[in-house]
Amino acid sequence: MIEVEVKAHVTNFEDVKEKLTEIGAEKIGTEHQMDVYFNAPHRDFAQTDEALRIREIPENGGKRIILTYKGAKLDGVSKTRKEIEVDVSDSEKMASILGNIGFRAAANVEKDRVIYLFNDSLISLDQVKKVGSFVEIEKEAKEDEDFKDAVDEIFETYKKLGIEEGFERRSYLELMGVK
Amino acid sequence: MIEVEVKAHVTNFEDVKEKLTEIGAEKIGTEHQMDVYFNAPHRDFAQTDEALRIREIPENGGKRIILTYKGAKLDGVSKTRKEIEVDVSDSEKMASILGNIGFRAAANVEKDRVIYLFNDSLISLDQVKKVGSFVEIEKEAKEDEDFKDAVDEIFETYKKLGIEEGFERRSYLELMGVK
Repeated sequence: MIEVEVKAHVTNFEDVKEKLTEIGAEKIGTEHQMDVYFNAPHRDFAQTDEALRIREIPENGGKRIILTYKGAKLDGVSKTRKEIEVDVSDSEKMASILGNIGFRAAANVEKDRVIYLFNDSLISLDQVKKVGSFVEIEKEAKEDEDFKDAVDEIFETYKKLGIEEGFERRSYLELMGVK
Repeated sequence: MIEVEVKAHVTNFEDVKEKLTEIGAEKIGTEHQMDVYFNAPHRDFAQTDEALRIREIPENGGKRIILTYKGAKLDGVSKTRKEIEVDVSDSEKMASILGNIGFRAAANVEKDRVIYLFNDSLISLDQVKKVGSFVEIEKEAKEDEDFKDAVDEIFETYKKLGIEEGFERRSYLELMGVK
């Protein structure tokens, strides 16, 4: 799967929330996300622009745990990249497997995310610990699909939200100075 | 967790099944297991005696999928080693994540397993495709525990089953000539 994604830095969420209501976006959930990023023993993911992550999301008294691989960004304007995700049953054991095969935990990212659905895009309002406030808009594309239309659509949606600057291609890791 | 394990080649399961009934072992399940073993990009697991595996077990119309790391064997008589397991939601996506981070599928092992419980040991009768019939007995130990008593107990159980030879420390992969 290709994750077509653009991120923008904002100073506050109030104006964005008003616009989201105006355009009829539907609030579909809130998540507290705790991420651990791993680096590889045989190549530097900071150089290859890849990512391997274990994400924990507390929910319903338990938690959802997701292992995600992200490939290098595919264009010069968006954060579009290959993304593969599986749910796993135990984050400590998953981290231990990665550690044993040579991967080391490189950084943690923690954020509160409010998620809206608008047409077939997900719009996330991210309050990222130690980094700031961001609006992310993402759509899915198939691996053999041209994703340029999806990128254009995402920028159209940003316009509707009154966001025309502050676009940020660096990851939260890079913004934290880790990568 | 440490998996304390001994395996023995047998010519048939009939005598073993009789003995299992005699000693009061309880049959707790049957599984069809389809395993894919992966090798690492930065070290050869055949040399380091490690293993990374995705196992699929069809059950209840769906399937259980387990990612397992096994460390090098810890003694000279048994197959005792560190073992870490997590359930994952999708075997193709898990294989794709491993492929993207540089691991390659090296071999497949397929077997039918009948599992018995005796005291706190699991006794498995394994019919392994292209390899043969084996009885495996395993117990769990903690990482800081001396596992020698567990190994002795396992050999005692083999005696009760009438098995005093055919012990095999090579993995099914090695027996298939892959490793």
